[in-house]
Amino acid sequence: MAINSVLDLVPKPLNPVRRLRVLGRFVRKQFTKPGTAPGTIVHTGVRKVEKVRVSTFDFDEMTCTELKDVEDIESLFDLRDSPTVTWVNIDGLHDTALIEKLGVHYGFHPLVLEDVVHVGQRPKLEEHEGYLYIVLSQLEWEGDQHMVVEDQVSLILGPNYVFSFQEQAGDDFESVRERIRQAKGKVRKQSADYLAYMLIDATVDNYFVILERLGEITEQIELELLEDPLPTTIQRLHQIKRELLVVRRAIWPLRDVLSGLNRGDSPLISESTRVYFRDVHDHAVQVLDTAETLRDVVGGMVEVYLAQVSIKTNETMKVLTMMASVFIPLTFIVGVYGMNFEFMPELHASWGYPAVWAVMIGVTAGILLWFRRQRWL
Amino acid sequence: MAINSVLDLVPKPLNPVRRLRVLGRFVRKQFTKPGTAPGTIVHTGVRKVEKVRVSTFDFDEMTCTELKDVEDIESLFDLRDSPTVTWVNIDGLHDTALIEKLGVHYGFHPLVLEDVVHVGQRPKLEEHEGYLYIVLSQLEWEGDQHMVVEDQVSLILGPNYVFSFQEQAGDDFESVRERIRQAKGKVRKQSADYLAYMLIDATVDNYFVILERLGEITEQIELELLEDPLPTTIQRLHQIKRELLVVRRAIWPLRDVLSGLNRGDSPLISESTRVYFRDVHDHAVQVLDTAETLRDVVGGMVEVYLAQVSIKTNETMKVLTMMASVFIPLTFIVGVYGMNFEFMPELHASWGYPAVWAVMIGVTAGILLWFRRQRWL
Amino acid sequence: MAINSVLDLVPKPLNPVRRLRVLGRFVRKQFTKPGTAPGTIVHTGVRKVEKVRVSTFDFDEMTCTELKDVEDIESLFDLRDSPTVTWVNIDGLHDTALIEKLGVHYGFHPLVLEDVVHVGQRPKLEEHEGYLYIVLSQLEWEGDQHMVVEDQVSLILGPNYVFSFQEQAGDDFESVRERIRQAKGKVRKQSADYLAYMLIDATVDNYFVILERLGEITEQIELELLEDPLPTTIQRLHQIKRELLVVRRAIWPLRDVLSGLNRGDSPLISESTRVYFRDVHDHAVQVLDTAETLRDVVGGMVEVYLAQVSIKTNETMKVLTMMASVFIPLTFIVGVYGMNFEFMPELHASWGYPAVWAVMIGVTAGILLWFRRQRWL
Amino acid sequence: MAINSVLDLVPKPLNPVRRLRVLGRFVRKQFTKPGTAPGTIVHTGVRKVEKVRVSTFDFDEMTCTELKDVEDIESLFDLRDSPTVTWVNIDGLHDTALIEKLGVHYGFHPLVLEDVVHVGQRPKLEEHEGYLYIVLSQLEWEGDQHMVVEDQVSLILGPNYVFSFQEQAGDDFESVRERIRQAKGKVRKQSADYLAYMLIDATVDNYFVILERLGEITEQIELELLEDPLPTTIQRLHQIKRELLVVRRAIWPLRDVLSGLNRGDSPLISESTRVYFRDVHDHAVQVLDTAETLRDVVGGMVEVYLAQVSIKTNETMKVLTMMASVFIPLTFIVGVYGMNFEFMPELHASWGYPAVWAVMIGVTAGILLWFRRQRWL
Amino acid sequence: MAINSVLDLVPKPLNPVRRLRVLGRFVRKQFTKPGTAPGTIVHTGVRKVEKVRVSTFDFDEMTCTELKDVEDIESLFDLRDSPTVTWVNIDGLHDTALIEKLGVHYGFHPLVLEDVVHVGQRPKLEEHEGYLYIVLSQLEWEGDQHMVVEDQVSLILGPNYVFSFQEQAGDDFESVRERIRQAKGKVRKQSADYLAYMLIDATVDNYFVILERLGEITEQIELELLEDPLPTTIQRLHQIKRELLVVRRAIWPLRDVLSGLNRGDSPLISESTRVYFRDVHDHAVQVLDTAETLRDVVGGMVEVYLAQVSIKTNETMKVLTMMASVFIPLTFIVGVYGMNFEFMPELHASWGYPAVWAVMIGVTAGILLWFRRQRWL
Repeated sequence: MAINSVLDLVPKPLNPVRRLRVLGRFVRKQFTKPGTAPGTIVHTGVRKVEKVRVSTFDFDEMTCTELKDVEDIESLFDLRDSPTVTWVNIDGLHDTALIEKLGVHYGFHPLVLEDVVHVGQRPKLEEHEGYLYIVLSQLEWEGDQHMVVEDQVSLILGPNYVFSFQEQAGDDFESVRERIRQAKGKVRKQSADYLAYMLIDATVDNYFVILERLGEITEQIELELLEDPLPTTIQRLHQIKRELLVVRRAIWPLRDVLSGLNRGDSPLISESTRVYFRDVHDHAVQVLDTAETLRDVVGGMVEVYLAQVSIKTNETMKVLTMMASVFIPLTFIVGVYGMNFEFMPELHASWGYPAVWAVMIGVTAGILLWFRRQRWL
Repeated sequence: MAINSVLDLVPKPLNPVRRLRVLGRFVRKQFTKPGTAPGTIVHTGVRKVEKVRVSTFDFDEMTCTELKDVEDIESLFDLRDSPTVTWVNIDGLHDTALIEKLGVHYGFHPLVLEDVVHVGQRPKLEEHEGYLYIVLSQLEWEGDQHMVVEDQVSLILGPNYVFSFQEQAGDDFESVRERIRQAKGKVRKQSADYLAYMLIDATVDNYFVILERLGEITEQIELELLEDPLPTTIQRLHQIKRELLVVRRAIWPLRDVLSGLNRGDSPLISESTRVYFRDVHDHAVQVLDTAETLRDVVGGMVEVYLAQVSIKTNETMKVLTMMASVFIPLTFIVGVYGMNFEFMPELHASWGYPAVWAVMIGVTAGILLWFRRQRWL
Repeated sequence: MAINSVLDLVPKPLNPVRRLRVLGRFVRKQFTKPGTAPGTIVHTGVRKVEKVRVSTFDFDEMTCTELKDVEDIESLFDLRDSPTVTWVNIDGLHDTALIEKLGVHYGFHPLVLEDVVHVGQRPKLEEHEGYLYIVLSQLEWEGDQHMVVEDQVSLILGPNYVFSFQEQAGDDFESVRERIRQAKGKVRKQSADYLAYMLIDATVDNYFVILERLGEITEQIELELLEDPLPTTIQRLHQIKRELLVVRRAIWPLRDVLSGLNRGDSPLISESTRVYFRDVHDHAVQVLDTAETLRDVVGGMVEVYLAQVSIKTNETMKVLTMMASVFIPLTFIVGVYGMNFEFMPELHASWGYPAVWAVMIGVTAGILLWFRRQRWL
Repeated sequence: MAINSVLDLVPKPLNPVRRLRVLGRFVRKQFTKPGTAPGTIVHTGVRKVEKVRVSTFDFDEMTCTELKDVEDIESLFDLRDSPTVTWVNIDGLHDTALIEKLGVHYGFHPLVLEDVVHVGQRPKLEEHEGYLYIVLSQLEWEGDQHMVVEDQVSLILGPNYVFSFQEQAGDDFESVRERIRQAKGKVRKQSADYLAYMLIDATVDNYFVILERLGEITEQIELELLEDPLPTTIQRLHQIKRELLVVRRAIWPLRDVLSGLNRGDSPLISESTRVYFRDVHDHAVQVLDTAETLRDVVGGMVEVYLAQVSIKTNETMKVLTMMASVFIPLTFIVGVYGMNFEFMPELHASWGYPAVWAVMIGVTAGILLWFRRQRWL
Repeated sequence: MAINSVLDLVPKPLNPVRRLRVLGRFVRKQFTKPGTAPGTIVHTGVRKVEKVRVSTFDFDEMTCTELKDVEDIESLFDLRDSPTVTWVNIDGLHDTALIEKLGVHYGFHPLVLEDVVHVGQRPKLEEHEGYLYIVLSQLEWEGDQHMVVEDQVSLILGPNYVFSFQEQAGDDFESVRERIRQAKGKVRKQSADYLAYMLIDATVDNYFVILERLGEITEQIELELLEDPLPTTIQRLHQIKRELLVVRRAIWPLRDVLSGLNRGDSPLISESTRVYFRDVHDHAVQVLDTAETLRDVVGGMVEVYLAQVSIKTNETMKVLTMMASVFIPLTFIVGVYGMNFEFMPELHASWGYPAVWAVMIGVTAGILLWFRRQRWL
């Protein structure tokens, strides 16, 4: 994801087939088949990982147990009633049986489980009896394709547990894991709501990376626009606009989610954690603000581009007009003395030829002078 | 409704007469004659089915009676007071006598009956004494005409019955029927409000199909736009924009209907069903969101199109300018030596002809060099 | 107002003087002179009828008295205190003395009377002690001028009377009169609020007629746009946009009026009538919705038009460029052999002339081939 | 301010220096120097009158005393406690000492006095202990410059007095003075709040004059646009748009002021006066509505203008293309027979010359026919 | 920051590299690294000053102690509990240890300290137990680069102290210092909330300076646009639009901050100070209003620019068309008599040559006449 060189920022000329895939994002194929019974747990997205991987943390201020690649999901069932904070992270959503088993044990509503595997949801917050269900969008910058990719992350926050469901193992949550392991910050001293906050915060923090990348590309395009706009510049402007649409779609509903967590009265979120949710809400608003400003800037660049194309056409016209205006009259003059009339006195005068040249030079000078006065030259 | 091939996605060149019919949708001819007394039950739409068909389900957890093609509407009157859940579905709205008879027996307000047969209503929710009246839009993708067609569906939800009125027998509700027959899911265990939810959910689920289709066509147009924009591309962009307007018109007011069902305090909707209405509300918001995003994308494509037309004009101009700039000076030069002056020393020199060629080659080279410097070549 | 033929739909080429009058509508000359004392009853509109005509209905379920062309306004004063429902309709507003006499007897606020004769008000609802004052816009389609004309209608609703003031005798209310005479529907059984509802409903119903007409013209323009856009097409698009602005201006504030009547707590409106006001509110929203959709469609047509003009310019350019590209080189070639050099060996060879033709045919073929490759041919 | 002739409506070609002054209005130079202590009373506007003039009315239903050019401001101090209604009008704001003296005696907040002399405020309403402070914009149509000029008017409404501060003596208030003098209308029978209403009403009434003037100019430009758009038409459209911005800026915040006066619960405004404030609020909304509609119309005219420029370019191109298409081939043909080959059989045939003419006429006819088929002719 | 001459207002032609830096402002690089623990105090901006400088004021109505360049931060700790008003100003944010020490002593929330050093925050107001945290944007006009630069200012308002944190020592606060020193105005008599007000007021006052500068540049560009639009004019319009975006981004959220301070119920803000916050809120709204109006004006100028480019292209076309239309037919005519047919009777007639001239003059006159009728000449 690092930028190796400035050149790396410049997307290759658009491969139409790839573009199509990009557009496909906007119409999330969310359903298996219209008419499926509500609450049916059917995974709808692309299978992004080979194998579903379950990993858990179970910790309090003193102890911390980490399990990777839990094979037997039922071994986690005891954690529901333990006083420690439990974080179960599931990467990959196609093993619906596993998710259903979990859901039944923890008493999640079938619609919640349906939404967990039904990727392409808008970010939302649902309060249920005993737990909160939160849907987020994880944005990833796909370096070689210069596009933003969206993954669904679901969080279920209970009194002493957090479940997180990801389409694939992203590295957004790695920093949280590290802090739990090393007991850095306050995470080990707080309860589950703080853990949920940290996961959301890690997700939102990543939006800044995306925006920075989009901002850099916008700068590249602007440089190109000012120096030498190409026919493909307008396509790149179109592309960046669409990536900004993806970002906006992810963040716009997120604001409501976060202000719900901040202002809501759920007993699952303690007073001291609320201030953190307010903080992450401010970040989301800031990202949105920046994305909207970038859209305004890009919109202005489209106008500049259109103006420049018109100016260029005008320049081309001027070249043609000057060429034609200078040489067409001259061609006429020489044509006159190419006529074969018997009685053309000029033709027989020895001063005829030089005189014609003098006239032609005079005409040319006059025309050029006129163009200079028009400031075409 | 299946897509047979990619080619099938490409609408034929626009048949203007058909287009007109498309536009006609926006101005729904809703009234028979201004000045008709309110509460007059007059069917206003096109008669889309030959014969009105009435079919019923009457079920509880144990039993389920299905009747197709009920001839005698009065045979259904007893069901009003039975404890079982009754679903009466009526396809075709032109038999206003039948509908009025039903309405009188069940005590529906004359304005409700008027709206049922008065197709072209905006989606809305009306709370009446003892029942709820819900108007929805059913969207259908008409494959060969590449357009979205709108049908009005009315639902009347009472304590133990649901009436549904359709302009024609669509297949949106078929999946619901199947689930009732097979006692799949929770439908047989729940009361009438859950049945109403299922019907609304089936309708909203179908919007995703429409959007997916529109998304595919948008992708086709974008491909065309990037590879080789045609004069008709702008017309197709215009067309897709209009289909998106149809979708928006159907869903925008639906959101309010669904949030009314979710948040309202009607005793007809039980607490446990409310969560399902919230779910279908989320779906509607998501459809709307996607439709708006598609409109933004299509709007951007119009800009790209306009820019490309300008660029093409510029290219055409350059070809002309270069042609003219190269040959007009040459024509002038040869014109000079076509003059018939007696005293033109060059004409009599043996080096004259080759020298002119040399000059002409030089001039041409100079001009071409200048164009290369301007990066026209 | 009937459409005699399709041709009738096409407005004649714009007569600028008429256009001006159309624009004049937007700046309603509402005041006589700034600085007139508030509450001064001065008629401000154009005098649209020769003579003010007063007509009344006085009815209850059993009896119904209709008076046309009441000469002596004072004969109506007793009706104020009779238990029957009284409807006084006044066509023409320039007899301010008559209106003032009425107002004093019934105790209307001077500002109300001022607004009644001060045409050009926005639709509004004012609650006064003992009566409601409602301002509406009546829209009329002026067939031969293809424009929407706006008239002000004022309604004053008291406990047992309705006053209606019209600028001229429209036929919107005729259907209401007919229903009272024939005791059709519920009007004779209800009190004055239902009568007011019927008058408003008749007005709103007429908006659908206007919109249908505008929709038809839009379709005509679209047909023209697709088949062969003319220079006047843009002017017609501009015109239709403006007519839609007139419609929007009439309906936008009307929504608030109607939702005020529906939700308000005025004792003058009974509970059973409220549902009717909700119904007419729904109609107004639907008209507004349709008008906005039409504006979106027309806005898109402007874009299509601009694109088509650009495409046409491009086509023209291509014709010129091809003509020039083919013949300018040929003209150069023949110019070469028109030179009068003594030593031009080709001129004296017998193969010279055919060879030049061969070269010219070759050059032409090459150029045409190049254009075909560019897909200009 | 009268329109002498139609020609008078047409602004002269834009004088750039004047334009600049026009733009300068948008950035009101509101501050003397950033960092001045709050509550410092420093006049910031242009000194629009030579000498500050103070004039007063002191009246009740029976008596009325008018003083013009009050020299000694302290002579007015007694009026504060008299039961009569007092109106003190001050034209010119640069005598800050006078205003401060007044303010101290009447107990106005320093920030109020600062705002009075600090011209360029947005219209606003401030409730203070014992008085209301109202800022309005007075719009003036400057006839010879065809622009809208904005003056600040401050009103301070106390229990029995009204202060009005104007930048210069406008004639908006003259009609109010006349009515007080002649005891016309209700003004002499009412208390100070009604006087304040009359002053505001006089100001708002004047907006209609401005809009009417702008409407007339818009009509002139539209006429010009339809008949023969000039290069300066776009500049005039730009100018009218900006004048509409000035109007909107004055009225938009005024609405809130007036609805505050209408709905607020200040004891300074009696119940019976509130209905008058509602009336003037309706007028303000109507002015705003009209200004917005005019902007929409002007926006549409810009589109029409751009389309017409494109159409004109296309027409120009067609002329060129037809000229070139007809004569370039002919020039080629005559060039062919201008060649000097020895062996050109046609040259020696007696039918050669007429045959060439026949060919040329044929070619020309063919080309013209083609153009007619393309409907260029 | 003074304007030396009119020329100084004209930005130099755009240096693309500088432009890029300008754009960079929109994507504030707010984070060090995603995944940093919340509450970590890491400075994120550019280090704008060499050395962090701490200066304090400690005053009441009688006494006033000013300290510049406080080296030992702990010496300030006693002031927390003293009854005097304390103002601690810190210029430069990179000494996070110092800020953390302060924060711990005064009991500020870690997130507050994080935001203080984490520059690029949106303006916001946070109520905490015992203090208010306010973030503002300070705008600076960078004269030689013609751009608006944004600095973050944080204020912490406690019962008897104000902390202000600036990225660098601006001169916005100098006037406040001067007034404290000289006991001018009310500042020494009021408590800390009034001091906070004065700091905010000084910041907002400075926005007027920025806007005035932007207004002047807009006027310059408009002058250029009307007299002679250059290809760079569109770029300058784009640039001014972006600077206005920066201003809007700073002020839009500020409005909410100020209305929060005005309406909120924090015990830290006394009733008498609230009116001052209302005043500064009005100023902020006015700045925003002006910025939006300027954007509208600039948006209109872009339209004018595009129209002018089109008009210019049209003019160029006309020159070309007239040149070609006059000379191409003449060239054809002379070409006819350059043909070498043996049998061309005209060639041998003595009237031939003058007759051709007569024909050519006639043709030219005809063409010019036609152009005059088309009003091209």
